[in-house]
Amino acid sequence: MSWKIQSHSTELEDLLIEESLFFTGNGYLGVRGNLEEGLDELDKTIRGTYINGFYDIVPITYGEKQFGFPDTQQRLLNVIDAQSVEIWVGVGNEKEKFSLTNGTILSYVRTLHLEAGYTERKIHWRSSFGSEVIITFKRLTSFIRKELFYQFITLEPVTGDIPIKIISTLNGNVTNFTDQNDPRVSSGNAKRLQVEKIERLDNNNYIQLNTFASNLSTAALSTTSVSAEDVSYSHYVGKESITSTATFKLTKKVHVDKRTFYIDSRHEPNLLARLLTVKNELESLSFEEIVGQQKDYLQSFWKHTDVTISGNDSIQEAVRFNLFHILQSAGTDSISSISAKGLSGEGYEGHYFWDTEIYLLPILTMTNPHLAKQLLLYRYSILEKAKNRAKEMGHNRGALFPWRTISGTECSAYYPAGTAQYHISADIAHSYIQYFLATDDWEFMKLAGIEVLVETARLWLEIGHFYKGAFHIDAVTGPDEYTCIVNNNYYTNVMAKQNLYWAKKACYLLQQKDEIYWNKLKQKIAINDKELQQFQEAAECMYLPVDDTLQINPQDDTFLQKQKWDFANTPKNRYPLLLHYHPLTIYRYQVCKQADTVLAHLLVEDEQTEKVIENSYHYYEQVTTHDSSLSSCVFGIMAARIGRLDRAYDYFLQSARLDLDNTHGNTKDGLHMANMGGTWMGIVVGFAGMRVKETGLHFRPQVPKAWEEYTFHLQFKNRLIHFQITEESFNINLVNGEPLSIYVWDKKVKVQYEHSIVLV
Amino acid sequence: MSWKIQSHSTELEDLLIEESLFFTGNGYLGVRGNLEEGLDELDKTIRGTYINGFYDIVPITYGEKQFGFPDTQQRLLNVIDAQSVEIWVGVGNEKEKFSLTNGTILSYVRTLHLEAGYTERKIHWRSSFGSEVIITFKRLTSFIRKELFYQFITLEPVTGDIPIKIISTLNGNVTNFTDQNDPRVSSGNAKRLQVEKIERLDNNNYIQLNTFASNLSTAALSTTSVSAEDVSYSHYVGKESITSTATFKLTKKVHVDKRTFYIDSRHEPNLLARLLTVKNELESLSFEEIVGQQKDYLQSFWKHTDVTISGNDSIQEAVRFNLFHILQSAGTDSISSISAKGLSGEGYEGHYFWDTEIYLLPILTMTNPHLAKQLLLYRYSILEKAKNRAKEMGHNRGALFPWRTISGTECSAYYPAGTAQYHISADIAHSYIQYFLATDDWEFMKLAGIEVLVETARLWLEIGHFYKGAFHIDAVTGPDEYTCIVNNNYYTNVMAKQNLYWAKKACYLLQQKDEIYWNKLKQKIAINDKELQQFQEAAECMYLPVDDTLQINPQDDTFLQKQKWDFANTPKNRYPLLLHYHPLTIYRYQVCKQADTVLAHLLVEDEQTEKVIENSYHYYEQVTTHDSSLSSCVFGIMAARIGRLDRAYDYFLQSARLDLDNTHGNTKDGLHMANMGGTWMGIVVGFAGMRVKETGLHFRPQVPKAWEEYTFHLQFKNRLIHFQITEESFNINLVNGEPLSIYVWDKKVKVQYEHSIVLV
Repeated sequence: MSWKIQSHSTELEDLLIEESLFFTGNGYLGVRGNLEEGLDELDKTIRGTYINGFYDIVPITYGEKQFGFPDTQQRLLNVIDAQSVEIWVGVGNEKEKFSLTNGTILSYVRTLHLEAGYTERKIHWRSSFGSEVIITFKRLTSFIRKELFYQFITLEPVTGDIPIKIISTLNGNVTNFTDQNDPRVSSGNAKRLQVEKIERLDNNNYIQLNTFASNLSTAALSTTSVSAEDVSYSHYVGKESITSTATFKLTKKVHVDKRTFYIDSRHEPNLLARLLTVKNELESLSFEEIVGQQKDYLQSFWKHTDVTISGNDSIQEAVRFNLFHILQSAGTDSISSISAKGLSGEGYEGHYFWDTEIYLLPILTMTNPHLAKQLLLYRYSILEKAKNRAKEMGHNRGALFPWRTISGTECSAYYPAGTAQYHISADIAHSYIQYFLATDDWEFMKLAGIEVLVETARLWLEIGHFYKGAFHIDAVTGPDEYTCIVNNNYYTNVMAKQNLYWAKKACYLLQQKDEIYWNKLKQKIAINDKELQQFQEAAECMYLPVDDTLQINPQDDTFLQKQKWDFANTPKNRYPLLLHYHPLTIYRYQVCKQADTVLAHLLVEDEQTEKVIENSYHYYEQVTTHDSSLSSCVFGIMAARIGRLDRAYDYFLQSARLDLDNTHGNTKDGLHMANMGGTWMGIVVGFAGMRVKETGLHFRPQVPKAWEEYTFHLQFKNRLIHFQITEESFNINLVNGEPLSIYVWDKKVKVQYEHSIVLV
Repeated sequence: MSWKIQSHSTELEDLLIEESLFFTGNGYLGVRGNLEEGLDELDKTIRGTYINGFYDIVPITYGEKQFGFPDTQQRLLNVIDAQSVEIWVGVGNEKEKFSLTNGTILSYVRTLHLEAGYTERKIHWRSSFGSEVIITFKRLTSFIRKELFYQFITLEPVTGDIPIKIISTLNGNVTNFTDQNDPRVSSGNAKRLQVEKIERLDNNNYIQLNTFASNLSTAALSTTSVSAEDVSYSHYVGKESITSTATFKLTKKVHVDKRTFYIDSRHEPNLLARLLTVKNELESLSFEEIVGQQKDYLQSFWKHTDVTISGNDSIQEAVRFNLFHILQSAGTDSISSISAKGLSGEGYEGHYFWDTEIYLLPILTMTNPHLAKQLLLYRYSILEKAKNRAKEMGHNRGALFPWRTISGTECSAYYPAGTAQYHISADIAHSYIQYFLATDDWEFMKLAGIEVLVETARLWLEIGHFYKGAFHIDAVTGPDEYTCIVNNNYYTNVMAKQNLYWAKKACYLLQQKDEIYWNKLKQKIAINDKELQQFQEAAECMYLPVDDTLQINPQDDTFLQKQKWDFANTPKNRYPLLLHYHPLTIYRYQVCKQADTVLAHLLVEDEQTEKVIENSYHYYEQVTTHDSSLSSCVFGIMAARIGRLDRAYDYFLQSARLDLDNTHGNTKDGLHMANMGGTWMGIVVGFAGMRVKETGLHFRPQVPKAWEEYTFHLQFKNRLIHFQITEESFNINLVNGEPLSIYVWDKKVKVQYEHSIVLV
């Protein structure tokens, strides 16, 4: 139990949401949970297959374009569709296509197998003409061979011999989903791929598509075979799609085996050759064997990543669901990351935001550092573009990472809640620092880490300045997108401070560790002691004010002087505010879309006193709408931090089942990946109080009332550690690695193989 | 002398600029100074005829659209082109079209007659085949019959009998000018008019065009006649244009008389009937007689408006040039205003901005109040739309006038330097107050004035709030477009204060003057004493800080804390900054595009001490680029105010000949109307120090070193007053009306018919 996510609904609304919930992915390939047989509501379904980071370039138009506004943006493309497998039952006039709206559904269950890594739909169906059949659709994208999308369909006759026709399609006529009315979804330029090759090769259907503008190609090779005797096949190669048709008589259980392999030109110049190789490699493996590989892979994943909760099945289910989808969406090739919707949908055009660094890297760094490293390397792969962008923005040096991007250039068309969020560069630095603190991975620091820390630090020297002895940063937007273009956003300043401090520190550490390498690197990035000293000074003098009266950190220089939003007179249907009020009106008030100062207190807690952190939490909670899905989890964690465990649990619940219960109403556009990472953080960072600092691992373990105990693993500096927390005790088990000291409620504890701390 | 603007250049660059400089207009109709014979460089010439406020609706697209962004905007349309009159000289193979690039130009002069109100081009031309002819093109748009555009061409043979063919076109195939690379010029949707009717009616060519989207129509009726004997005519009605051809032998002086009448459906439902009526009315009048009417009209205009300057002809020329073009561009029908480029071009899409209220109404109010009143009524005509816009922006009541518009809805596609400039509503209120103070026009106040003052005042109560006892206004942009979305912009606050104060005051004054009317109006605008009291309180408590150290008014809450722009390291070719830096980068620094606080000190000077005004001038001068053409004139006026007369004169020179010398490089897109008004202000408000206050007219007369004396007229409360200022004396002559008291250097003086004050 709790290793399965199940649905029995065939309601249209549920099916649309399940397109996201039941998507299958492996970090490279993502296939939405569309139906093999199709859905009647063509305008509502979002039929999608995505390759992580595979994009076209589309123009951005502006009513009034200003200097430095990007002319184009990248868009994640919906690629070749292999999902279609129609099952026609009967012959002649009594022939009928199986679908959820034809005939009668006698039983129906859909399952996501979290341990085995595949999805399954099992339908007992009676056609209008009385034929009964049990159909089981299984599908997976392989974690072992990233190219593979595997559909395995079983047909069992209930009413004797049934004539069957299977029509399996590989469709190159694909477009992206558009919606004129929602700014969070794309509204034009739907078709961006054209057929370059379409052909039948031996027993394979092959399509290659080229993008309109980005000069990229993708291809898919697909074969469909049926295990029945006396099958007759035919194939039709159209202009944009290929169909393979199989007809046979269903007398006993029959399997339809459809294997589709995907590749793109960013990974392999010779698309076809690669696809044939992979196909041949897997030729001899049965579906069960492929599932077996998948299980092995996941066994290792769960060993490091699983979180168990005793006392609440619905939360247990949600937590595993979220963890699984993070794995499915995380790029592993160092040129892709985790888009806002992962590989589950096209919302936000498949762009990568700060979500990865602040909401998803914490779990991956602490449970699967090898995956985390790939995501960090993605940022390194676009460092040159970030340096170019800084120049374009008028800065002399440094790196300004784009607010949203795929291939590295700025894709934001509304800069006040886009480019102005300069904090993303500090967020990336933060994720590098956290990774370094958790892994001691010096090879990574030499390869990429120090360069990224230095180039981002340089940005702050460029845009900041000294005023009355303090280092100020003006005209930026913090995480809260309801307050834009401000001076001295606390979050930005404190994160920039950390960035500056660590840029200098990492350089000094490297110098001590490997002076030869340091001298080489020094040349490469043209850094000298004077500049390092400037980093240090700016960090030390960073302006981080505390309001004297309220004893909180002001979100920015003028936030506290603004009028508070009139929440009492704002009807519920006017949320999220951004869809009902002009940005200027929103900016005029004390109202936050999401955690901002409160998030700063989570990420860099030692800059403030307990009292300021607590007061700030209460103050900002009053004015925060949580219109962003990145908010509740942070407030939950900080509620736990200040001992408000009930409140923490309320927030945690909002976060944990956000997608499973579609509480934001737009899960059909894709899963809220950042929030999924936030759920893990809610437990480990929130309830267990984990922080990764220079001094090591810190905990402040607590247990929500509704739970008996919870457990999780962490990786820390080449150790695997298991934690079990109950109301009474904090049990730590060093699964492997050397003993170490950790801090529990600020008390230093040496951790041996089995270690239990009594919690009073 | 100095009543003519002349050019002898036939260089392409000059001809393009002269399309604007030599445009003819009458407030309703504007025809650019294009050449009858055409210009070879079709992609550079902007061939245009405009009807004030005649627009189509075009879509605005956004990369990322937010709530409340306008979906469409209006655009001033280039309407039916009547300018073309080709003159073909010779016959058969020896035939040649007259143009400035064919044959030989033996002499050339182009003249704008400021007293007579027409333009003239006189060319002595020899064809490639040796025929010589003197051609004179005269053209005017009538101030008496606004529908009339009159071209009068004289041909004089020099080399004996010359076969001539005249091809006169009325062209309905018209588009607007587009430029992809300049945000100040439109970039798409060029063609917005289609032919509804095209026909030959008796001796007239008639075309009616309909707009694509705004449901408006315009029509032109045109006839061309030639005074020669034995003329043979032919006419061709095409799909979108009509040509009339006349052939004759040129043996003596011949006149080509082309009269084109324009009308649009906003003024007259039956377009054709109106055009025929006007045409018939003028039938019997010769060109000389029409010019005679024009002269009479202008005599009256100049009597009230002329400014004379002894000692500087080039300035005298420029001043009259500017005054004349203001008259040519000012709408007189209460549904149109003065667009940024007047009727001289299409720059800024023909939109009306605050330019009219702050830069052009001062001169019109003080010299031609009947014209001023029409412009004020235009704002009243769009009051309901301004109230709707306020609601759309989330305010419960009040009027938010659009930053740029034609028919009343917001047309700004970049709100930080658009909609956020809430000050426009206070600017409009200011122009109403100034008009009232200068005219005592109670009928106007009852009809429109009080309602506009109250509705604009309500806006400030909506967006402002009390903080620590002071009334704050957050999240607005002041006049300076290099500093956007700030709190407590000094300009906005002080103008809002005036707005609030006068909304209450005007109501109380009306109550005293006409209680019956007041009670009716009270009902209509649903106002009560409590709200008036709120106006008063907000005005009294308006936050208008002075920086303790600098003793200046901070431009906004955080301006003075920002870093100063690095002017020393900014090359000249990086100005204007907006074309070379991202807005966010510009916003981050202390750098102003234009007068902001300094303008506030001009418009509302009694809120601050002399010292603060003077310090502020010096402070902001250091950080202002004058990248806007609305800036130099204000700095010049305020330099005079603080006694820096040399500096004032430098600024005045920049302003006075800005278009004549094309110093901003874009005069070809149209004249800088606001700056033209600013030139008059430079003299009357700057050097003479005129202010219109509740206490009456104030002067601080000074004379620039380069001048011997200067004179001007003002109208004030039904008086016409003449002023003559020399180094030694300030001579005031009450031309008509009752004696009154004025203030000269803060000393009260009773003005009789001839009054001279010795200036020490």
